[in-house]
Formats: sequence, C-alpha cells, structure tokens
Amino acid sequence: MLTTEQQAALTSGHDMWHTSAVGDLPSITVTDGPHGVRKQAADAKDLITGEPATCFPPAVALGSSWDPELVHRVGVALGEEARAMGVSVLLGPGINLKRSPLGGRNFEYYAEDPLLTGILAVEWVKGLQSQGVGASLKHFAVNSQETDRMRVSADVDERTLRELYLHAFQRVVEQAQPWTVMCAYNRVNGVYASEHRWLLTEVLRDEWGFEGLVVSDWGAVVDRVAAVAAGLDLTMPGPDEPGDRALVAAVADGSLDPAALETSAARVRALVDKALRHADPDATYDEAAHHALAREAAARSIVLLRNEGGLLPLSTSDTSVAVIGEIANTPRYQGGGSSQITPTRLDDALTEIRTLTSAEVTFAAGYAVDGGEDGALVAEAVEVAAAADVAVVFVGTAHETEGADRAGIDLPAGQLALVERIVAANPRTVVVLSNGAVVRTTPWDRAVPALVEGWLLGQAGGGALADVLFGVVNPSGRLSETIPHRLADHPSHLDFPGEAGHVRYGEGIHVGYRGFDAREQDVAYPFGFGLSYTTFAYGDATASIVDGDVEVRVAVTNTGDRDGREVVQVYAGLPGSKVRRAPRELKGFANVAVAAGATVEVTVRIPRADLAYWDPWLGRWAVEGGEYVLSVGASSRDVRTSVTVAVDGDDTRRPLTAGSTLQEWLDDPKGAEVLMNAWAAATAGGDDTGDGTGGNNQAAAALADPQVFMFLASLPLGRLTSFAGDQFGADAIDALVREANS
Amino acid sequence: MLTTEQQAALTSGHDMWHTSAVGDLPSITVTDGPHGVRKQAADAKDLITGEPATCFPPAVALGSSWDPELVHRVGVALGEEARAMGVSVLLGPGINLKRSPLGGRNFEYYAEDPLLTGILAVEWVKGLQSQGVGASLKHFAVNSQETDRMRVSADVDERTLRELYLHAFQRVVEQAQPWTVMCAYNRVNGVYASEHRWLLTEVLRDEWGFEGLVVSDWGAVVDRVAAVAAGLDLTMPGPDEPGDRALVAAVADGSLDPAALETSAARVRALVDKALRHADPDATYDEAAHHALAREAAARSIVLLRNEGGLLPLSTSDTSVAVIGEIANTPRYQGGGSSQITPTRLDDALTEIRTLTSAEVTFAAGYAVDGGEDGALVAEAVEVAAAADVAVVFVGTAHETEGADRAGIDLPAGQLALVERIVAANPRTVVVLSNGAVVRTTPWDRAVPALVEGWLLGQAGGGALADVLFGVVNPSGRLSETIPHRLADHPSHLDFPGEAGHVRYGEGIHVGYRGFDAREQDVAYPFGFGLSYTTFAYGDATASIVDGDVEVRVAVTNTGDRDGREVVQVYAGLPGSKVRRAPRELKGFANVAVAAGATVEVTVRIPRADLAYWDPWLGRWAVEGGEYVLSVGASSRDVRTSVTVAVDGDDTRRPLTAGSTLQEWLDDPKGAEVLMNAWAAATAGGDDTGDGTGGNNQAAAALADPQVFMFLASLPLGRLTSFAGDQFGADAIDALVREANS
Repeated sequence: MLTTEQQAALTSGHDMWHTSAVGDLPSITVTDGPHGVRKQAADAKDLITGEPATCFPPAVALGSSWDPELVHRVGVALGEEARAMGVSVLLGPGINLKRSPLGGRNFEYYAEDPLLTGILAVEWVKGLQSQGVGASLKHFAVNSQETDRMRVSADVDERTLRELYLHAFQRVVEQAQPWTVMCAYNRVNGVYASEHRWLLTEVLRDEWGFEGLVVSDWGAVVDRVAAVAAGLDLTMPGPDEPGDRALVAAVADGSLDPAALETSAARVRALVDKALRHADPDATYDEAAHHALAREAAARSIVLLRNEGGLLPLSTSDTSVAVIGEIANTPRYQGGGSSQITPTRLDDALTEIRTLTSAEVTFAAGYAVDGGEDGALVAEAVEVAAAADVAVVFVGTAHETEGADRAGIDLPAGQLALVERIVAANPRTVVVLSNGAVVRTTPWDRAVPALVEGWLLGQAGGGALADVLFGVVNPSGRLSETIPHRLADHPSHLDFPGEAGHVRYGEGIHVGYRGFDAREQDVAYPFGFGLSYTTFAYGDATASIVDGDVEVRVAVTNTGDRDGREVVQVYAGLPGSKVRRAPRELKGFANVAVAAGATVEVTVRIPRADLAYWDPWLGRWAVEGGEYVLSVGASSRDVRTSVTVAVDGDDTRRPLTAGSTLQEWLDDPKGAEVLMNAWAAATAGGDDTGDGTGGNNQAAAALADPQVFMFLASLPLGRLTSFAGDQFGADAIDALVREANS
Repeated sequence: MLTTEQQAALTSGHDMWHTSAVGDLPSITVTDGPHGVRKQAADAKDLITGEPATCFPPAVALGSSWDPELVHRVGVALGEEARAMGVSVLLGPGINLKRSPLGGRNFEYYAEDPLLTGILAVEWVKGLQSQGVGASLKHFAVNSQETDRMRVSADVDERTLRELYLHAFQRVVEQAQPWTVMCAYNRVNGVYASEHRWLLTEVLRDEWGFEGLVVSDWGAVVDRVAAVAAGLDLTMPGPDEPGDRALVAAVADGSLDPAALETSAARVRALVDKALRHADPDATYDEAAHHALAREAAARSIVLLRNEGGLLPLSTSDTSVAVIGEIANTPRYQGGGSSQITPTRLDDALTEIRTLTSAEVTFAAGYAVDGGEDGALVAEAVEVAAAADVAVVFVGTAHETEGADRAGIDLPAGQLALVERIVAANPRTVVVLSNGAVVRTTPWDRAVPALVEGWLLGQAGGGALADVLFGVVNPSGRLSETIPHRLADHPSHLDFPGEAGHVRYGEGIHVGYRGFDAREQDVAYPFGFGLSYTTFAYGDATASIVDGDVEVRVAVTNTGDRDGREVVQVYAGLPGSKVRRAPRELKGFANVAVAAGATVEVTVRIPRADLAYWDPWLGRWAVEGGEYVLSVGASSRDVRTSVTVAVDGDDTRRPLTAGSTLQEWLDDPKGAEVLMNAWAAATAGGDDTGDGTGGNNQAAAALADPQVFMFLASLPLGRLTSFAGDQFGADAIDALVREANS
C-alpha cells in the first residue's frame, strides 16, 4: 500500500520521458510517435533529436491509403521498434480531425472524416499493442489547431462533438482499448481538457469503457488537483514536486477525494506492471524489412490527382527524364515538432528514379529549399526540362510544424512560377507535390498534364514516388481531405483559428466534405478522390438488412489492362431527416485488389450503430427510421451506383410537457386529441370574461383560427396561460400533460 | 405609496392591450406596429384584425430607402395616427438583423447591417416620439428567426453580439431614448431574454443609459420573479394573477429584492404618467396626406435591379402596356402576424398604371394568388403580352408571416415559368417583384431586361410602382440585404435555424455581405446595390481626422439628363487588423439629391466610436490604430474611389501574466527583456541536474533553440515549470510577472 505522498509522486513523471519509480515500482519509458519511435538520445542536446528509427509515412500519408490492413502492419513494425528500444508506450496515434487546411499539425492526423480516421487508428493501435507496446490515443479532444493551442477553448456543440470530434476516439477505445489516452492542451467549451471530468471520466470511462490510463500532453496540466479529480492519471513531464505536494494537501484538507488519487496511482502501477510483463531486453527489429514496409506504405499513400493522356506511368521508351526541383534531392518527408524522427536511412526521389530507369536522368534544382526565387536556377531547370522526353517537377510546402498553424494553402510563388516555365518548356510534365496538408492546385493544375500528391511520405518516400511514377506500383491512394479551389471556400474559413481564447466551431457537423456538399460548392478534388493506372466499372449496388446492420454489395470490374486497387466508398444520406445532416456521410469502404479484367464482389457492412446520430434532446445516440440513400462510388462526388434501404428507427419520442409547443402537441396523436378537446371546451366558454374586455375567451377562441395559429404554433403550452387565462391555468396545463402522456 | 400587491399588479397587463389600472393610476393602451397602428377593434373576433390605419411600407421596404429623413417623417405620421387612436405606445420599431434570408419576419426588419438599421430606427423613434407616443424597440435581442422562436437559444459570442446584434439597439437607445424596449421571446446563450439580467440591466441600462421601461414580448415571460429580478418591468399580456402572487410571495420570503419590484412598478407608473401628459383626445390625422406619404415612402424604397437597354422608365410613346400577374390586381403589400394592418385604402398597381398612362393597358392574371400553375391563365397572359408594346409581369412570394420561417428563397415555380413564357413572347418585358425577403433571381434574371424589386410596399405600393415604372419617381432604393446566387451560398446556411433548442451563430461577425466578402463569393446583387434612371460619377475621395472623427469627402456628379438621388456609401476595412474583420463594413452613407448635370460635395462623418471593435480580452470597445481603407461607392462591391486614413488607436495593452504565452512575452518589449534575461540565467545553470537524467536544464537550454521555440511559443509562461522546474518555479514566475509590469 502506497502512502498518499507516494501516490502523488507516482502520478507525475520522473523526468521528460520516464514515469516515477516509487517504492518497489520501477519507471518505464514513454516516447513520442506516432510515425516512428522518437527516443531521445541519452546525450541529446535538444528536445527534438532522437535515436535513429524508421520514419514511416506520417498520418497525412497513411490516411490516404484507406487501407486498414496496411496500417496494421505499420503498427506492428512500430511496436517492434519500440520494444527493441525499451519503450513501453509510444505516443500515438494522433487522431484529431483535420478541421481546417491551415491546421499546423494536420500532417500528424489522418483525415477530415471521423470514420476513416477511426478505422485506420484502430488497426494502428491493434498492430502496435500486439507487440506489447502501449498506444497513447491523442489528443483528447478537439485539438484542431496550433494557434494559442495551450489555452484556446474549442467551442463546439455536443452533437458535433459526438458525431465528429469524439467519434474516432470512441471507436478506437471501444475496439482496440489503447493502454493510454492523452488529454489535449486546449480547453473544450471553456474547460481545460486536462480538467474535463465529462471528457476524461464520464464519456471516456463510464460510457466508452476505457480501462487504461489518461496521461497529459506534455505541459497540459494547469492544476494537478483539478486534473486528478477530473480523471487525469499521469502528469507529464515531471518532476512536479509542487503539484505532488498540492495533491497531498488536497487529500489532507478534504478537497480531493482520496479515492481519486488512489485510483490514478493504481492506474499508473497497472500500466507499469503491464509494460514490464511485455518488456523484452533482447528484442530487435529488422531495419531493412521496416524500410521496405515504409516504402510499400508510402507508395500506397500516394494519390494520383491528374493524368491527362495517360502520361503516367512513365514509359520505358523514354530515353531521358528531367528531374526538376530540389525536393527530389532533399526530400520533404516529415513535419517538425514532437513527431520528428531521425531516420535510419533516407531515400531521395532523384536517386531512386535513377535506380529504376535505364533512361538518362538529368537534374536541376530549380529553387533552393526554404529559399526565395532564383532566376539562374529557374533558367537552368527550363533548359534541362526542354532537353528531356519528360519532366518531373518536385514542389512542396515550406516546413510544417507542430506549434504553428499555416498562413495559407498556396505553394511558394517561386515554385508555381517554375512549374509554369517547365510546362511551357516541356508539355510532357509531371508535377509531384510534397506537403503535410492541402495545397491549392487551382488554377495552375489545368496546365499540368499529370499531378501526383506525394504528401509527406517518410524515409522511403523517394523510392515510393519512383515506384508510382514508373508504374511499379499502381497508385491507389485516395484523398482523405478535400482540396478546395480556394481557402475561402472551406467550411471552417470564417471561424479559424478564433480569437481572444475561443474558437467557434461554427460549421458544426459540416466538417470537410460535409460542408462543401451542404453548401453545394465545387471543389478542385473531392474527398475520396484518386486515380489509378487502370479503370474500374461498378455494377448496380444492392442493400439489405442483416442482423440489423446494413449490408451493401456491389460488383467492381477492373476494365483496364493493369492490376490495381479500388477503394469502394459507401456514403449515406437521409433525405427529409428530422435533424440537420450532411448530404453524404462516409459509412464504410473496402480497399480491394482487382486483377486486370477481373470482377470482385465487394461487401461493405455498416453496423446499425454507425447510422445513429446524436440526439441532443434525448442525450443519446439514436437511429432515425427512414429510407437511407446509400451512394456507392469512387469518391464522395463520384457516385457510381446508389440504392436505398429502409431502416427501422429507434423510439425517439419525447414526453409532452408544458414546455412543448402547440405544434409539438398537435404533431403527437394523443397530444392533439387532448389539446383539441381542451380548446373546444375553452372556446365554448362564452365570449365574455365578465370584465368587459373580451380578453381571455377571445384569445382562446382565436387559437382555433388557422391564420392565428400560424403565429402561435411555437408557443409552449404552459405559456397559453398568458393569453387564455384560467382555461389554461397551471392546474389545467398539468392535467393536460398527465393525460397526454398517460 | 403602492402596496406590494399593487406593485405586482402594475407590472402585468390588464388584458391584451392595456396596462393595469392600480390605485389612482389609470391604464394606457399599447398596440402592435410597426408600419401602422394595429389597434384591435372593440368587437374583434380574432387577434389580428384592427381598426383601419395607414399601412406604411414595412421595414423591408423602408430599409431599402437608405433615407433617415424619410423614415423620420413616417415616424411622425405613425405618431399622429397612434395619438388620434388613443394609443400611447406603438410596438416598434423591429430592428433585429436579417441573419438569414429564410427569416420569417425579415419583412419587419430593416437590414442585414446594424449601422443602416440603427440610423433608420433612430429617426423612426424620434419621429414617433415627437408626437408624444412611445416607441418599443424590439425584439431585444437576437431574435433572428421564427423556428422555435419562444424557446430557441441564440448561441452567439460577445463580440458578435456587440458589433452586430446589439449594435442598432445601442444606437437607438443612446440617440433616441425610446420610451420602452421589448424583450424577445428567445433565449440568448441559454438564458431567456425576459430573464437576462446582463441584457436587460447591465448592458441596456448601466452601459447604454436606457431610462425607459422594459416590456415583454407577448407571452415571453416564463418566470415573473426571475424576469423582474433581471430588469423586466411589464409583463404582457395580462392579467397574470399567478405571476402577481408569485412576486408578492418572493418579496415576502426574501427571494426577490423588494427594490426590484418597486423599481419596475415605478417605471410603469412613469410610463403611464408620461403617456397621459401627451394624450390628446381631440387629436386627428390627415388620412389623405398619410396615404400620399405612404406612396412617397414606397416609391423611395423600390430598388431597380436591372435595366438593360434603358427599357425603363416606360416610354410615353408606347401605345400599349400589358400588365401580367394577379399581384398587380391583388397586391402583396404586407406580411402576416402582429404587424398586419387593416389599411385605410389599398392601391393596386394595375389601376395606378391605368391612371398614369394614356396608353392602352391590358391585363391578364397569369396565375391565381396562392394557386398552383394554371395553363389557361398562362396562355391568356402570353397572348396579352405578345400583343403589347411592353409587358410588365408582377410576381411575388407566397404569404410571409410571423411565426414561420420560409422554406426557401425561390419564387413559385409556376410564376417563374410564366416569366419565361412572357419574355419569349415579348422581349420588352419588365418583371416586378413583391416579396418580404430576398428571392433568388439566378439564373432567370439574365433573360429579363428589366427587374424591379418592389418588396412589400404598404397600402400605396401600387401607385409607387406605377410612379417608378413611368419615371414619375427616379428610383433610388438600395438593397439592404444581399441577393445571393443560391441559398447555400449564404453565410448563415449551415447554421439556420438550428435544432434541439439551440441555434449557433456560426458565421459570427460575418453577417450578410460581411460573410460574402470574407468568403470572396460572387453574388447576384450586392448589399447597397440599386440602379437609377440617371448615372453618377465620383471624384476622388479625401479623408481627414476632425475632432477625432473621420470625415470623408467626395464629389458626386449626375452625369445623366434626369434628376436623381445617389446613396453614397462609405465602407471601412483595416488590413492586417489584429482581430478578425470583414473586408468592408458600412460606416456611413449619404442619400443626396443631385440635379441632372449637377455636382454635389458629399461629406460623410464617421464618429471615432463607430470605428471601434469589441475587444473580448478587455471587455470593452476599442479603436485599433492603423491605416483604415475607406471604400466609397454605390454599393458594397461598386467601389468608385478609396482613400486611407491613419487613425490613432486606443491603448489595448494587456498586462503580462503567468497565463501569457512565451510569444506574448516576447512580443512585449519589456516582457522580452525580462524573459530573455531569466532564460540566459537558466541556461547558464549547467547541463546536469545531478540525477543523471539531464532533464530540466536540458529543457531550459532547449528553449533558446529557435526550432524548439517554434513549438513552445504558445506555452503559457507559468507552465514552464513543467519543463524547466525550479528555474521557472512559481516564485520565479511571480517575480518575472512583477518585473514585466513594473
């Protein structure tokens, strides 16, 4: 049994990366992730540089793979590395939604859609934890921006929270039980996530059944006592003697329930015990195999946006390829901040292209990375491009990093000018993008025959890009975030990043494509979009109810002459829904390999629960009954076949009360009967109240007039008293309510 | 001295339209407005029908006049009628912002801009009250929709409240002291307006200096005790004996401060006393003169949207005019609900056109009002139109009414089909709109050479339309609400009308044109737009600071051959502002008559206070210093000349605290000096804490690394303790804060 002092000490870290050793309990090591194991070197002079580890594709890329199986394998590999490095908990996955393309940390997150995010993150966690290494699901919750990130309050209604920002967290907790969940820096509706009892205890544990430990983001705790009371178990980094003392004092003076501290300490102990059971000092990993996996994952994450005239894949008959752009030589492969990995190797695209082709490969930098425009470099690049059969231009964003949101979504002007010059010099030009979040492609992409979205691809991205460019891999990545024509088109545009300590999530449930669809806006490339080197035809979808779930079936045929993968996406809508809904919400998908000429029968099962909306009146999830339209296709706007399915709804009737409006009473069969009878009686009561004003009965009578009723329909029944006096006094209203609900 | 029982009785009405007579105090009459005196007839069988009174143009029309002087005269006329009818308080003006084009009561409100609304409403109130009749400024506040209007909570941040939704109320209270303010039905941020102490007392009285009485909207009071405690003086309608008793009981048991009830009762008494002083049983009004004023005001409210080839005004050389559309015969001239007036006369456009022209005027109904499509009527109309020199088609919305928001902004499909057929039959076709709120004109207006926005024009609207069509009046109305291409384009689209008892004002300050501008969206007709039968040229604007205010001067020349009026509009923007701002905000305007060929020097003075934004950090208005761009022109998007002016800002420095971020410390000269010194000391403290972990000092050292600093910039100073331990412990932080603010 630990003393209160020991319990307090156990709930704050020993230092930056270790839990406290207390009594007989040793400390364990936690390190940053998520796309690699960033274990700080013993002799590190800064907070960033870690021991070498495989830099897998960051989430911005993996999210575009739409491939749970692939993500699972990455999770396993990360687990192997962590275990080999003596790391018990890897701080990932990051599953916040990409609310705005300006989000500085978007490269660490998967998607603008919670279902896609959740499905991929479940596999990441399962993969990691299969190796005896714990995940830390982060950042819980609503950590969608870097601006004022340690104070800003994300002001968001509960339905939006439940359906969008908490949704992936719920899925991962329920399906993968991560060892830990990391609370976010920010406030949620005014309360720090680290002190948010509703989030950390009521929702996370009581509703979702989370069994693990809640750890703070590094420096997220403002008040240790409030945090422990809310359900925050482990404060990092440490040591935090003042906080430890505050906890002891709070227990002593009764302001903190001793059971809260005891529970948190026990959770730290349980985590340490579990970690020790799985630790293996002899563990190693296969660095070469992991590099190969990093290359495979990167290739599967690349999205082919445009390919006019089948310019790609590059032909083996080309005798010369001009590679333009310093990024081909000095890759942009990850973002800055806590996730920054010291890679075991680093492939650049230029070298990998030279390895893959026997054609002559020439190179010109075109620009200096992080440099301004340079006329001489441009001139050289134009000359090199003009002399080749085909030109491949690598452009990308400047450094993206944790801690700072982006200022815009445009590529550097100098790079765009370079692209324009290269295309003019060689019409067979491919543009390859390296970027951690959406960049604007309008209008310059119209002049470019082929456009490859290469995101940040990790240490093996150079090889992966070469694989796709030369057709070694047939691209199958799909956008997990909409590319808008303009930043101003984005649903979050008017409300990002907020000011004065608050950011209003004004678009509500209309995050990403949901908003573009609801506003009927044209976009450059829609959510779910991505081309292949082959083509796919869809049969007619069918849908049926199986054990309450919706099962959608569709035949997909590879109509080209090259094997490929198709990501079959199923979106649901409910026309005439009683609540606001996006026109189409992703409800399921299947990532299938289809051999050239072959047909695959694809089945996507939508669990009934995934059709539910959060009913803010009832305070719970509910499935609305009705004819759901299931749109099946290759992107959110490329619907190839659709089918409707009738779904029985949950009972969502609310009892009638004095606060229910006349319209609500009349919409309810029993309520209507009761109320109309009462009206009839009131109206029959005579034309005169006896005081000569004609007041009350006149009013009661008027309620039966449709023209008048129109503007009284929203009157809560109880307030009829104001207009109709005694006939609808408090006692009469009570009687009506009882009768209507009897 | 009144007893508590008497005080309570005095604070609820006697019946629907009278205050209570208590002791020696008689009752007074209040009636609905605002565009006419709706005094319920003694023998009325319903709540709607009133005694005949002049139906002036509803606010949707008057708002388009952009003419304070005209609105003042309407206010005077309303006051004359009210006094003649024994009415002491007329329930108007309605000055809620038109947040969404779907707002069912938009026809009762002036504009989507608070400055225009406020300037017009000030004159309305001054005019009315000059006749000894009190106004009731309504609906206070944020009553922007009819859906669930008696319960819905308008969830809106304080800056948006202050700058948009409360702004016109503040102006009218401060400049015109209305006798009464009417609280709204809805809740504001969760609290019923009728119980909202911050709104009814802190803001309205303590800040703005309101000296009158707060009356409830009819049926808006849920809890009399809470309402009186909040500052609600008079509950209507009455009687409300249960509420009176509750007040007495609350005073008796101490749960209500007796002074609160005493004050409210005293305010009712003061209102009655004032009303009695101004009452004049012999007062009359000149019905014919008021009808003429109604016609003048209506004509000045009409907006000419399109006039290709100068089709309008109709030529005296036309020998035949086909008038099409039942609305020409059966005018749509006001909306439904509490503002519905029984007019003294009613002019229809068909008769008035026949009066004005010697040409042959033919007529075909084309459709039945409130009816569906009727092929025979259309065929007849096409025939009539084809046979005439020119066709004028009247179309309009179905009934708009208090109590129900609109379902869409499209004109009835049958009417649009009619327009298409008429234009095909006669290319010289004018379309005249009758509508209480924006209707969609895209894309059909491109086929129509002339388009006249006739809103709801009151009882003399028929004559006013004839005046404009034939050039008796040169149109000078300007849109006070943007006409979007599509409903989905509107800034409010994703958040109207809310659900489950809440509506999020997600677009924040970006109401109306502010949002279209911020999102860089094309619109059909921008805010402030309106054509004339003449043309105006602008000279170069100049701007100067005069006694702290901004004075803008510009010469406007009538370059046509017809006298006309120009509405010179001045919008301000502050590029690089530290707070979010709309690109252009209306800051002033001048409505000037300019004779053909003449030049008028226009001066628009912008009081310095009108440049202020609401600073949510400081909790007060503040003028930000900087180079303001003043855009001067004929609409929000027709900027003819612009000029910048340097404005000295208010001091908006906030003291540095432990909660200020490192970035905020470094942005402050003194803070930067203090903090950098402390860092230097911490970094010099050695590389080892002595426990072998390298923890704290390593961290402190790292803060000096720019790459690391990037992701620590948003760290509140106080939380440095987590990372850097004792060097930045609580005492050290306190010392830094003291030093920085010394």
